[in-house]
Amino acid sequence: MRIVICALFALGALCAQGTDDCKPSSLNIPGAPYPCVHPDRRVTFRVSAPDAQKVQVRLGGAHDMTKGADGLWMATIPPQVVGFHYYSIVIDGAVVADPATRTFFGSGWDNSGIEIPEASADAAYYSAKDVPHGQVAQRWYYSKVTGQWRRCYVYTPAEYDSNRTAKFPVLYLLHGWGENEQGWTSQGHVDFIMDNLIAAKRAKPMIVVMDNLNAVKPGGDASLYAGRGIISRRTLADVAPAPGGRGAGAPAAGAGRGAAPAGGRGGFPSNWGQVFTDMLLTDLVPMVEHTYRVAPGRENRAMAGLSMGGMQSFMTVLGNLDKFAYLGGFSGSSGGRGGFDPKTSNNGVFADAAGFNKKMKVLFLGIGSVEGPGTKTFSDELTKAGIHNVYFESPGTAHEWLTWRRCLNDFAPRLFK
Amino acid sequence: MRIVICALFALGALCAQGTDDCKPSSLNIPGAPYPCVHPDRRVTFRVSAPDAQKVQVRLGGAHDMTKGADGLWMATIPPQVVGFHYYSIVIDGAVVADPATRTFFGSGWDNSGIEIPEASADAAYYSAKDVPHGQVAQRWYYSKVTGQWRRCYVYTPAEYDSNRTAKFPVLYLLHGWGENEQGWTSQGHVDFIMDNLIAAKRAKPMIVVMDNLNAVKPGGDASLYAGRGIISRRTLADVAPAPGGRGAGAPAAGAGRGAAPAGGRGGFPSNWGQVFTDMLLTDLVPMVEHTYRVAPGRENRAMAGLSMGGMQSFMTVLGNLDKFAYLGGFSGSSGGRGGFDPKTSNNGVFADAAGFNKKMKVLFLGIGSVEGPGTKTFSDELTKAGIHNVYFESPGTAHEWLTWRRCLNDFAPRLFK
Repeated sequence: MRIVICALFALGALCAQGTDDCKPSSLNIPGAPYPCVHPDRRVTFRVSAPDAQKVQVRLGGAHDMTKGADGLWMATIPPQVVGFHYYSIVIDGAVVADPATRTFFGSGWDNSGIEIPEASADAAYYSAKDVPHGQVAQRWYYSKVTGQWRRCYVYTPAEYDSNRTAKFPVLYLLHGWGENEQGWTSQGHVDFIMDNLIAAKRAKPMIVVMDNLNAVKPGGDASLYAGRGIISRRTLADVAPAPGGRGAGAPAAGAGRGAAPAGGRGGFPSNWGQVFTDMLLTDLVPMVEHTYRVAPGRENRAMAGLSMGGMQSFMTVLGNLDKFAYLGGFSGSSGGRGGFDPKTSNNGVFADAAGFNKKMKVLFLGIGSVEGPGTKTFSDELTKAGIHNVYFESPGTAHEWLTWRRCLNDFAPRLFK
Repeated sequence: MRIVICALFALGALCAQGTDDCKPSSLNIPGAPYPCVHPDRRVTFRVSAPDAQKVQVRLGGAHDMTKGADGLWMATIPPQVVGFHYYSIVIDGAVVADPATRTFFGSGWDNSGIEIPEASADAAYYSAKDVPHGQVAQRWYYSKVTGQWRRCYVYTPAEYDSNRTAKFPVLYLLHGWGENEQGWTSQGHVDFIMDNLIAAKRAKPMIVVMDNLNAVKPGGDASLYAGRGIISRRTLADVAPAPGGRGAGAPAAGAGRGAAPAGGRGGFPSNWGQVFTDMLLTDLVPMVEHTYRVAPGRENRAMAGLSMGGMQSFMTVLGNLDKFAYLGGFSGSSGGRGGFDPKTSNNGVFADAAGFNKKMKVLFLGIGSVEGPGTKTFSDELTKAGIHNVYFESPGTAHEWLTWRRCLNDFAPRLFK
């Protein structure tokens, strides 16, 4: 196969030559040759839309596609950073998923995903290896707080099945805004990361529980979590603007801008995460501890999350230090925008630094290096206030899943030791 | 909300009045009001495609949508049969998933799904109820036969966790052509069906293992399984015609036409399912029996599948009666097209009826009543030849998931007794 791709730019035509070295994305549906990734990380897309007037691929910005003599639209876009990216196709104004890839729930809908591969050595920690494998289970449970059946995913390590009496500590791990409880498995490869860490004896065997941030009381407004803003712009034109003054289409707090704002700032209602905390403590933790072989007590319980899930984790854990001893925020926590006051922020939980440090075994703040300085600022502020914390920076990555895979890979080995 | 929908037909305009009684499909993304289902099972769709010239919804046939003053395209289509249906949207010739619904892997890609609800009493058996719940686990394992990491899903009943020494029988359960190992959970509700049967003591607690039909040796051609025909027509124009002489775009054997043909007929290569059988016996069964608490022996092992998965199950089990004692074909088996000869068909496995009946505890043939007479014919032929079998017919349903949910609900209680 030898193809020539021409993309029209403002100043003329740029032709790029694609050859067999353009490899199909690992997330393509079986047999689909496009999208494919070139060795220099350019990406070529192809879409069949024979009667369309204008077709674009949206990945980062919008890239015009060109219709060939065969009626297929193609585009080769500039080199992309490594890792997982959501993207979509725009066909005469309709924003849809590329039918050539598997879909992934992000921004509130099932859109396309592409994986720009790293060097295999760099990707080894989240790849399948010949080590003992755990599993990720889908489990339904009834929540009294929300009055609904909810679904969570539960990773259990290989040791859970091979040692049938042992009890295990638990990490509660959250996705970000517009995503759901499947994200850490589908986009994050939580299972391979944990399998590999545990096999290498870098992390203790543990259970990882992944639930859905969306938690409202019966009749409550779930639009904050469902990604209504973006959906509204796309297909749900009659949906009212989201609450909190951000209006339709506003991205999640923290998205792409470094650390997330504290509860009550950035347009979130001040009590936005309280129902989730109630649900977690009332319904989820008891279900998990009743169903699985769980080691008891706060020192066997951790919580972390990415972006909005990091904000939620800080809210839940800092308000319940009697129940959790480990806390992680991946591109999202409760600070980084200035205004931090150790005496009063987060209801004064940091006021007694020595007391806090004694209770909190690990306070972890992770971020991608291109997300901005907010998380580093928050870490420095905490350190200045005498609060022990771990700052982790993923080189060259943004507000995306590769940052969060790396965060988990650094965070999990610190737990339950 | 009070809306008026106008659909243009050949003879003029038909206006249907929609009101609040049009309920969003349960498979919509959170917050999406469309597609919605009317009490008479008409369905209204809405798509944002502001610059498109022609938009259709494909569900059964193709239905033209109409662009409103707000730039949104809408259509209300005639009453649909109950149950799960795949569907897609066509925007200026591009076949894509409706961004307003969750996607489901069928026909080789992630397309849209809609659930036309049954009366709640009829749907109770596959709905979440206040009974002990098992879980469905995603598990990776390495296959020596295919030289690849494979993924299966494993349902374990609530008893698996509550009785931590008990051993359980296993049902191996397969999806159909163009689908994958996720189908029985996402489209089939296997977990709720089994939870409810077991809680009612109608079925024995059992493990259900759901794998992927796609199994080829290293370097082999997976196109038979990947739905390449349909994909080719849509986006993969340079893919060569599928093997077996059916050409691009041919539907799966058995799809929509009653019972599936025997191996070697209908364009399938005569040995098409042999690699899967080898993989199952060499890799999957040993992994399952090593990993889970499994009761030993053929009388604790069953296999069933739908459509192409039914064909596969017949091939695997009839060739390995020393390893399986229960067999189910849901809208797919190994007969029904004439030419059945009890002395020679399926390598003569039915020639000694008494011996066969002694070994095979349950031989189950299920079908939707509108799929055609093939399966009933096959059942009658078997009966005439003295082969005990169970014929189950789902009233009013087609080659779709509601037929297969009902088949499982009838089949599972017959196992391991």
